[in-house]
Amino acid sequence: MSNTLRQSELFTKTRKEAPSDEVSKNAQLLIRAGYIHKEMAGVYSWLPLGLRTLNNIIRIIREEMDAAGGQEVKLTGLQDPTLWKETDRWSDENVDVWFKTQLQSGGELGLGFTHEEPITRLMKDHVSSYKDLPRLLYQFQTKFRNEVRAKSGVMRTREFTMKDLYSFARTTEEHDALYARMSEAYTTIFNRVGLGKYTYKTFASGGVFAKYSHEFQTLTAAGEDTIYIHTDSNLAINEEVFTDEVCADLGVQKADFKPHTASEVGNIFSLGIRFSSALNLQFKDEEGKGTPVIMGSYGIGPARLLGVMVETLADEKGLVWPEEIAPFQYHLIVLDNGNEEVRADADRLFHEMKGKDMSVLYDDRHARAGEKFADADLIGIPKRIIVSEKTLASGEYEVVTRATGTSLFVHEQELLGN
Amino acid sequence: MSNTLRQSELFTKTRKEAPSDEVSKNAQLLIRAGYIHKEMAGVYSWLPLGLRTLNNIIRIIREEMDAAGGQEVKLTGLQDPTLWKETDRWSDENVDVWFKTQLQSGGELGLGFTHEEPITRLMKDHVSSYKDLPRLLYQFQTKFRNEVRAKSGVMRTREFTMKDLYSFARTTEEHDALYARMSEAYTTIFNRVGLGKYTYKTFASGGVFAKYSHEFQTLTAAGEDTIYIHTDSNLAINEEVFTDEVCADLGVQKADFKPHTASEVGNIFSLGIRFSSALNLQFKDEEGKGTPVIMGSYGIGPARLLGVMVETLADEKGLVWPEEIAPFQYHLIVLDNGNEEVRADADRLFHEMKGKDMSVLYDDRHARAGEKFADADLIGIPKRIIVSEKTLASGEYEVVTRATGTSLFVHEQELLGN
Repeated sequence: MSNTLRQSELFTKTRKEAPSDEVSKNAQLLIRAGYIHKEMAGVYSWLPLGLRTLNNIIRIIREEMDAAGGQEVKLTGLQDPTLWKETDRWSDENVDVWFKTQLQSGGELGLGFTHEEPITRLMKDHVSSYKDLPRLLYQFQTKFRNEVRAKSGVMRTREFTMKDLYSFARTTEEHDALYARMSEAYTTIFNRVGLGKYTYKTFASGGVFAKYSHEFQTLTAAGEDTIYIHTDSNLAINEEVFTDEVCADLGVQKADFKPHTASEVGNIFSLGIRFSSALNLQFKDEEGKGTPVIMGSYGIGPARLLGVMVETLADEKGLVWPEEIAPFQYHLIVLDNGNEEVRADADRLFHEMKGKDMSVLYDDRHARAGEKFADADLIGIPKRIIVSEKTLASGEYEVVTRATGTSLFVHEQELLGN
Repeated sequence: MSNTLRQSELFTKTRKEAPSDEVSKNAQLLIRAGYIHKEMAGVYSWLPLGLRTLNNIIRIIREEMDAAGGQEVKLTGLQDPTLWKETDRWSDENVDVWFKTQLQSGGELGLGFTHEEPITRLMKDHVSSYKDLPRLLYQFQTKFRNEVRAKSGVMRTREFTMKDLYSFARTTEEHDALYARMSEAYTTIFNRVGLGKYTYKTFASGGVFAKYSHEFQTLTAAGEDTIYIHTDSNLAINEEVFTDEVCADLGVQKADFKPHTASEVGNIFSLGIRFSSALNLQFKDEEGKGTPVIMGSYGIGPARLLGVMVETLADEKGLVWPEEIAPFQYHLIVLDNGNEEVRADADRLFHEMKGKDMSVLYDDRHARAGEKFADADLIGIPKRIIVSEKTLASGEYEVVTRATGTSLFVHEQELLGN
């Protein structure tokens, strides 16, 4: 992925209107800015600006999964029913989001909506002794979910890349330590992508094998969940478990919480021996006794995160990206009005920035200033650099911060970090 | 992706036997070495060593697509039938590899086996004038193909990542120039991945809109195709068009060709106005006249390429990788026999190599020399570095080249490039 691009060569164009059937703010803005293309309800393609943005989120998550000791794999969309029948998750009665299809050579297949079953089966080839544990495996892989409704843009789609990590531990204590490590990694990720201050680690239902699971919930009016946040601390509880009993368990008063609308951007979940027991993933302990492996699962949807970012950070003029996520760091805009000296100066500056390996989208189009500014606002790159007759005369370039609108005049040396 | 890994932490293990139903050499070796996991016939998951190898191939292809002016996108697996009906490629009579599925909310969907239709439709939002062309769009995206047979390991699967690029031109001349540019990029790719000397650009059937297409065919006994290669030149012709007429057209004698078994690792294809005409992708020329865009498509399957590499380069002991493709460059092996000084020296060397950002798999396992060497041969990392009592005494490390078996003794300074 090149770090610089001339906008005259970028194949996407901005547009004034989103498709009329698109109701979510995130999809409307992302389509208008040329980040995504709507293939059908709940199914979006990623265009160059969008893919760069999505890949920045993926890169950050990958770095944190690697730092936490995760090993990357890539499982498959096509799924074998025999495996899912063993855990009783094949029937449409038990799981309502399967897409199912048929092999020409005979037999039914599913499209994976999650991967506990195949990863548990896979581990049976590689785990036999206590010496083979603990392990953390993760992937960025396409999930398919046959959602009945799809009205939240890229926040809830029928096909999306998910980061799912699975932990494999020998003891409850070891599992708890891995769970805590993942929780910390998630906090780091949400801080790094710029959503830290809006995101709450939230107590949620734990299922059969654990008292609680945890969701990471980001405050946004577009959210589908209600969470209760303690007025004096960061403690948050999902509506589904916001009961007197749970509050007592956590040593807090129900009255000290206020409801907020939020969107789940990540979740961490103790699976216990639900899957290892059904699929017979065991290890031999130091005495040679076979024991089921204790598992956990940890998910983040990068596109969902991107959608929540749009809902939370965008303004009436368009997208606004945190620096670590933006498709480019600088939007260099030439306003030449036919003045060749101005254009030559912008070309020269672009060349210098390229030489410094700076990340620049160069709006070298022959277009009006109003059109260029409106496009730049919509696309939302953090810093805009304007080259015009005025800047050429003054010897300083105008640098405008997208998020705040504040404008500075800086010398080239400073801009290039010389 | 970290550049170093301790083998004691790698979750995969090698195995002596592949699954009994696995007939292809590439899948047998890749499964035994812990590169892939067989989910079912024709469907494989990628494990850490395999994913690193696959990603190296993808990185090289991406670099060459970017260098040729390609812009990366990512389309979707789920496909809208209304679109494919417009080009008459929805029915199972016309296309025999569709996987089809049903939306819960009603309606049939397909799983994309290629993407001419959606990319043509997508371009309608972004192309209107001659100024918007030419363009090159590409993606690395999962294709699904409902193959009746799947016996060639990772060379032909029901689900795989494909690099597909599509070109959009205004005139035949412009199309031909893009086609030639892609042909050169493909030659560069096959050279870089180490298959250049086995790979032939081969004349193949062109379909309705062009006299010929071109396949890149790699010589391998596991190939599914027969190509004819001129005895005095590199000219190659696919069996399907190896006729007197075609030979005359190319100015050669049929008698001067010999048949070879080969595997198709890439293809480049002129589409003419087949899709732009059916889906109404037009541009306005300088006189304002609407004209259909001239298209081409250009495919490489990275996993297929990896499979062919195994078939071509592996030996009876296991995998052999070109340096640019290998999951790691160095396989550091400690043979300590319980000697703590030896282990300390290997640990120290690993630390030094890590500090130099060298790419190292460190076999720090407490295992016999024979087991470690057999595993190293099977995994196929290009350079093996042995640390033992002998090397500690001599002050030099033994470096063995996997491909040739040649062994050298080198000083640490030299090894670290100091």
